[in-house]
Amino acid sequence: MSTIFSRIAAGEIPSYKVAEDEKHFAFLDINPMAPGHTLVIPRREVDYLFDLTPEEYGELMEFARKVALKLKRAVECSRVGVAVLGMEVPHTHIHLVPLQTEADMDFRAPKLKLADDEMERIARAIAEA
Amino acid sequence: MSTIFSRIAAGEIPSYKVAEDEKHFAFLDINPMAPGHTLVIPRREVDYLFDLTPEEYGELMEFARKVALKLKRAVECSRVGVAVLGMEVPHTHIHLVPLQTEADMDFRAPKLKLADDEMERIARAIAEA
Repeated sequence: MSTIFSRIAAGEIPSYKVAEDEKHFAFLDINPMAPGHTLVIPRREVDYLFDLTPEEYGELMEFARKVALKLKRAVECSRVGVAVLGMEVPHTHIHLVPLQTEADMDFRAPKLKLADDEMERIARAIAEA
Repeated sequence: MSTIFSRIAAGEIPSYKVAEDEKHFAFLDINPMAPGHTLVIPRREVDYLFDLTPEEYGELMEFARKVALKLKRAVECSRVGVAVLGMEVPHTHIHLVPLQTEADMDFRAPKLKLADDEMERIARAIAEA
């Protein structure tokens, strides 16, 4: 039974792809805290971040670093925040969130809903940054 | 001009130390979101996480992984959450927060205040886990 994130990474469910490599996939959160809010996942299904092998964890963090640098170049923000909670989907995912202030990292605030063409534009800008 | 975190890592300001090595320091947040809420920092003062060199960043993340494993063993929780926002102190710090539910990672909620001996006990339990 694949997680929804595995199906996104496999292209079975459409997403606004930001970056990928052999072991990882990054795509826009469809309910973003801020425009450009990106999820970074390993292709291998592991529920809890710290259950990844040390090598897998290191590779995932390095991939996330590269995505965060692109995100910062593509989306106006003072910095890119990082969060891993991961209780809703049992597949490790790193939130990368463009922040203007600390208050922008608020998992309980109402999420944004952006138009499809705006999501497309943002994903392309990050991918090409 | 040293940051408050550099002064903590240097022992100039007391803290509830959880772990340290040559390049990193981990200590309890004195205004925790949950008991065991830990901050992990590089000793070198760099404001923004993604301004660390790739090597420094990888080493910091690996150190944080080891602290998170100890934290999970020492403090009752369903998992350890991770967050990096870092706008209040200009010295990169990773929040490791024992979570029962996603809602426990709430930067806007009122912080806990634990007694000194309880903080001591938790720090020792994590350090020895």
